[in-house]
Amino acid sequence: MCAPVGGLLAALAMVLGMAVAFAPKPRITWEHREVHLEKFHEPGIFNYSVLLLSEDKTTLYVGAREAVFALSAHNVSEKQHEAYWKVSEDKKAKCAEKGKSRQTECLNYIRVLQPLGPGALYVCGTNAFQPACDHLDLTSFRFLGRREDGKGRCPFDPAQSYTSVMVDGELYSGTSYNFLGSEPIISRNSSHSPLRTEYAIPWLNEPSFVFADVMRERPDGLDSGDDRVYFFFTEVSVEYEFVFKLMIPRVARVCKGDQGGLRTLQKKWTSFLKARLICSRPDSNLVFNVLQDVFVLRAEGLKEPVIYGVFTPQLNNVGLSAVCAYHLSAAEEVFSRGKYMQSTTVEQSHTKWVRYNGAVPTPRPGACITREARAANLSSSLSLPDKTLQFVKDHPLMDSSVTPIDNRPRLIRSDVNYTQVVVDRTWALDGTPYDVMFVGTDQGTLHKAVSLENEAHIIEETRLFQDLEPVQTLLLNSQKGRKFVYAGSSSGVVQAPVAFCEKHATCEDCVLARDPYCAWSPASQACVALHLPDSPSRDLIQRMSGDTAGCPTSSVPSPPPGSSSLSCRGPGAAASPRSPRPASGSGSDSGPPVALLPPFLSDQAQHVRALGTFHLFCQATGPADIHFIWEKNGRELETCVPTQTHALLDGRTHALSWLQDAVGASAEYRCSIVSSAGNRTSRVRVTVMRLEATHQEQWTRELAAWRAVAGEHDRVMRSWRKAWESCDKDNL
Amino acid sequence: MCAPVGGLLAALAMVLGMAVAFAPKPRITWEHREVHLEKFHEPGIFNYSVLLLSEDKTTLYVGAREAVFALSAHNVSEKQHEAYWKVSEDKKAKCAEKGKSRQTECLNYIRVLQPLGPGALYVCGTNAFQPACDHLDLTSFRFLGRREDGKGRCPFDPAQSYTSVMVDGELYSGTSYNFLGSEPIISRNSSHSPLRTEYAIPWLNEPSFVFADVMRERPDGLDSGDDRVYFFFTEVSVEYEFVFKLMIPRVARVCKGDQGGLRTLQKKWTSFLKARLICSRPDSNLVFNVLQDVFVLRAEGLKEPVIYGVFTPQLNNVGLSAVCAYHLSAAEEVFSRGKYMQSTTVEQSHTKWVRYNGAVPTPRPGACITREARAANLSSSLSLPDKTLQFVKDHPLMDSSVTPIDNRPRLIRSDVNYTQVVVDRTWALDGTPYDVMFVGTDQGTLHKAVSLENEAHIIEETRLFQDLEPVQTLLLNSQKGRKFVYAGSSSGVVQAPVAFCEKHATCEDCVLARDPYCAWSPASQACVALHLPDSPSRDLIQRMSGDTAGCPTSSVPSPPPGSSSLSCRGPGAAASPRSPRPASGSGSDSGPPVALLPPFLSDQAQHVRALGTFHLFCQATGPADIHFIWEKNGRELETCVPTQTHALLDGRTHALSWLQDAVGASAEYRCSIVSSAGNRTSRVRVTVMRLEATHQEQWTRELAAWRAVAGEHDRVMRSWRKAWESCDKDNL
Repeated sequence: MCAPVGGLLAALAMVLGMAVAFAPKPRITWEHREVHLEKFHEPGIFNYSVLLLSEDKTTLYVGAREAVFALSAHNVSEKQHEAYWKVSEDKKAKCAEKGKSRQTECLNYIRVLQPLGPGALYVCGTNAFQPACDHLDLTSFRFLGRREDGKGRCPFDPAQSYTSVMVDGELYSGTSYNFLGSEPIISRNSSHSPLRTEYAIPWLNEPSFVFADVMRERPDGLDSGDDRVYFFFTEVSVEYEFVFKLMIPRVARVCKGDQGGLRTLQKKWTSFLKARLICSRPDSNLVFNVLQDVFVLRAEGLKEPVIYGVFTPQLNNVGLSAVCAYHLSAAEEVFSRGKYMQSTTVEQSHTKWVRYNGAVPTPRPGACITREARAANLSSSLSLPDKTLQFVKDHPLMDSSVTPIDNRPRLIRSDVNYTQVVVDRTWALDGTPYDVMFVGTDQGTLHKAVSLENEAHIIEETRLFQDLEPVQTLLLNSQKGRKFVYAGSSSGVVQAPVAFCEKHATCEDCVLARDPYCAWSPASQACVALHLPDSPSRDLIQRMSGDTAGCPTSSVPSPPPGSSSLSCRGPGAAASPRSPRPASGSGSDSGPPVALLPPFLSDQAQHVRALGTFHLFCQATGPADIHFIWEKNGRELETCVPTQTHALLDGRTHALSWLQDAVGASAEYRCSIVSSAGNRTSRVRVTVMRLEATHQEQWTRELAAWRAVAGEHDRVMRSWRKAWESCDKDNL
Repeated sequence: MCAPVGGLLAALAMVLGMAVAFAPKPRITWEHREVHLEKFHEPGIFNYSVLLLSEDKTTLYVGAREAVFALSAHNVSEKQHEAYWKVSEDKKAKCAEKGKSRQTECLNYIRVLQPLGPGALYVCGTNAFQPACDHLDLTSFRFLGRREDGKGRCPFDPAQSYTSVMVDGELYSGTSYNFLGSEPIISRNSSHSPLRTEYAIPWLNEPSFVFADVMRERPDGLDSGDDRVYFFFTEVSVEYEFVFKLMIPRVARVCKGDQGGLRTLQKKWTSFLKARLICSRPDSNLVFNVLQDVFVLRAEGLKEPVIYGVFTPQLNNVGLSAVCAYHLSAAEEVFSRGKYMQSTTVEQSHTKWVRYNGAVPTPRPGACITREARAANLSSSLSLPDKTLQFVKDHPLMDSSVTPIDNRPRLIRSDVNYTQVVVDRTWALDGTPYDVMFVGTDQGTLHKAVSLENEAHIIEETRLFQDLEPVQTLLLNSQKGRKFVYAGSSSGVVQAPVAFCEKHATCEDCVLARDPYCAWSPASQACVALHLPDSPSRDLIQRMSGDTAGCPTSSVPSPPPGSSSLSCRGPGAAASPRSPRPASGSGSDSGPPVALLPPFLSDQAQHVRALGTFHLFCQATGPADIHFIWEKNGRELETCVPTQTHALLDGRTHALSWLQDAVGASAEYRCSIVSSAGNRTSRVRVTVMRLEATHQEQWTRELAAWRAVAGEHDRVMRSWRKAWESCDKDNL
């Protein structure tokens, strides 16, 4: 009979009032084969790095290396169309001549995949270090051969960062502008008004582009009075001085109505401003200064878009990640009312960036052309005075920073590197909205997390890709009743539902998952999904607090009889003294002598990760009344420990007991076999080890382990053999 | 029969050419009870934080909270003397009135324990926030009652940092000078020439003192011409600008002959200079900027002292440490020939520290009074010109940094926080010197490491203290033939020998340990210590490369016969096809049917730490010819897997096989039971998890684990019961 653990849970919950810096490990991990995932992979095609949903959300377009695919958005394993765009042998040869790899670099990596009206896609690829763009007709799924130079829209080098967004038919992109990748650029590729950034360190300093999106003008006109395009990237800091190059995550924005300056900043952005994104925990010395991905959440009930970013630290990163969320208005506020930074020269050769406290020209440098400005006859950026333009040219960096909601990360995890994020807003059974974060890792897994009572809870971890490859891109399909997360990696595309409710077999599991998508249906005795169209809605049980008290009680049947038996030993299962009762004598005539058999508990010393499940086995032979007592740190175990007995040919009984446990701190276990013929005890210490190191040391450690295993095997085998021989002598 | 692993080791060694950033895990971990350690703890006394060896190295003096002990240095469990210095109730009350804790802070923590001539010790304690010093007579082991004000020699607050060194009867100390701990000071407490630091940010900026030692003038006179006292600490950087306060490890030095200035720097150091200590791996973005402890290695064969420092990172530290080693001359070079830094004011309110490129006054600011200076009639610092003094007052910080030997850390570990270090030079059998690092952790363990072929190797880890408490202090006794490491913690003092050679039971283990202290003696069939006086010296086997080819070959006896048997199954052990042979039919009449018994392999899914040992069990009943085939990732295992069989009363045979393994990456295991009555297979995936988080989340995770265990127990029990019932039905 299993002892109730409710009391223990309550006691443990008492101590949870303390500040918790790191999110707990995922409650459940789904291995690749445990859950149903739809997969797509075209033989010979790699690098599935760009995903795009059709407007009606029924088709998923995938940009890979030298190919574009159209897949069913409901089942990505169903390929609808394919189009190939390969590099000619001639081009490949030229590219290889420049010192690039023919096999990996001199190919065409699709980097831009954007909608272009209803019937076409705009596609750009690296094209063997000669970036090019083309139109893909969606009816024929053929490239129209309208080749355009992709310079400034798509990087030359597939290893370089890129981002782009199509806004009202014009492509905004962040990439590098030259073969070497040394000239970064944020540009608008427009026939009537192409614009770009200045090529200057204060504007862009070795940026890694991450994401771009348009923020539409609010219909109430309370904001800047124009649509803005936001760019997110990490660049080398100018304002800090560190032991070496310090990276800083940034948000930059330009106005859609920008047409550049007339003389100063001609064909350049007059509205380019950038600011720091803060994601840190100064009290714990945690600094997340490398932005990996951004998702903009827009949902029913949200007053304004919320920007989610996943970050990793640049410094001392042995596996550490965070998710920070920002109100769009926090960034808008910095751009529209914040102070600027300026650089000053120190001692001829040094530069220091400090807050600019002087007078700011009017109209405010970097501002969009607002309604008031237009009313005051300032119709476009072309009419901006030189003073304003010169100021914004020299002061693109804001002094204020964009701080996250609640001034701290939503989620911090200490054993992963997060790469991608999408967020879905869903409503629990009681109508409370939950913003569910789906975060991809560099190990091919997906974490699903929610914020509960100001604390992050990782509902589950799902292995999307069998190999330990990074999740390169995530896309959310939040269509009602058909919510999916699509993930792209080097090897393929995977489609996962937003929840695996049906995997929770009991009401307790279903409730403890604390998954806002799932609730227990007592009627169908199943954990059901709330977001599906055919979901039942009556008499469901869901407690986001994880309180299982509302679950119907279940009972366990009593063990079957027989000459062999399986039982679950708990403290209340039999007359069980707190410690083994004294033997009636070692040479007792009450039956065969009692003997522990190898592997003894003492042979099973192991180092486990904190809270990792492990098993301990204990077996013995002796008279028919042998039974086990398990102790942990000197106290008899309160949980059930299965025990199995077999009657042997020679009149002895063979008994085997196995314990499954997980501990947060090192613990000593004792297995005692108690019988009328005497008692025997074996003990072992299970040691909890702390964090593991990175891949780099894998091999060295593998070697060390093999050596250790080889040595240990030999040692353990000898001791077992010795024990066995003496045990055989005694009994046979 | 165990398959040889030598070939595999060789193959793995092939791939080790790559750069390895992190040291591998310790090859062996000795648990607290596995090795013989001498211990000392006086009931009711805590905080054993200061250790000092008597000059003849036979007595270990221990400074604890309110007590000083004299222990036998050969066996610390033998207490020779004790002296108590308790705070009066009156003082305690006054201290508590000032808002300090009566139970913890208002006590007398011994912080200074220094030799004072042959028969006395100089002892200082915090004395309930009224630091005081006294003389301890070593003959009577009584305090002489010569109370002196301890201000400037010992901190007020037991939580604050401190360091001191007695040089020729004068105490040099680094501590804080006031009740609040806000005024840091490095001073010499001397009757004829007391000196101290300026109270100014450029001199000391919130330092944490770590260590101090004297560097004697070289007899050849090739150095600065005076004894110097070195101080090691971490302080807040002035030269860097970071997101928040950035710590920087420093080395500072003063000259013993310094007597202060005449007008400028009166009673202040005229020779105080400080420089950055570099310990980082910029290529991996690893910055170790918090110095935890320093040890100065002086040994036969070493041209100059080598300074060993243990560091942890301030930023994003989820368990990361490094050891860096510096030549004393590297620091001397910076102080005697390096450029200085100067501060400049930027835009009225900001300060920036840059290299000073202007003219430097003569004599060189901060230099000791050299022989040449004395010859030129500059007899002491009192005669230094104002210009030199004013310069050193304003420019105590050097622009150059002290870089470590080989320009990189000796050792980096990613799952520990190192706290203390001592280093012993020893000579291997072939005469090669090895500098063995003994590093204490914040978890009560000791790592013993050497640098081998430019790579760190952690020979062993020893649990010194049963509880997970930090090692607060380490002291090495390097007396020939009696080498010990003493460790102090909050709970007591532990004495460990420098090696546990005798624990290596085979020649292979002894050689693979790669421990320069140990070698295998074929004559005595034991692993013997080389550093002990009675060590044999002939025909020993030691290979620091770990090559066991020189070891004599050993053999394993064949399994004993009987109705029960234990065997070790390797691929060559029997007629074993690469995959289970096809069953002769499921309802075969060749014997009882074959059945796997719970716990099935599939129930034993577990997450293990990389290279942590784990066990898998597989058991079955069936006809007498049942045997197991184990596969790992689809390939039959090449190592021996022990199997045990029992003849059951009902004619069946019960077989149990258990596998011990350790993997670097997740792996799938398959256990197949093969018999004339059919085959059965069970499989499981063992997943390798990466680093674990810190204590803070322990409780949350403990809770999550309990929940998970409770749920899993229930699930697993049900499935076992079901299997058992059907199995019983079939067979009985």
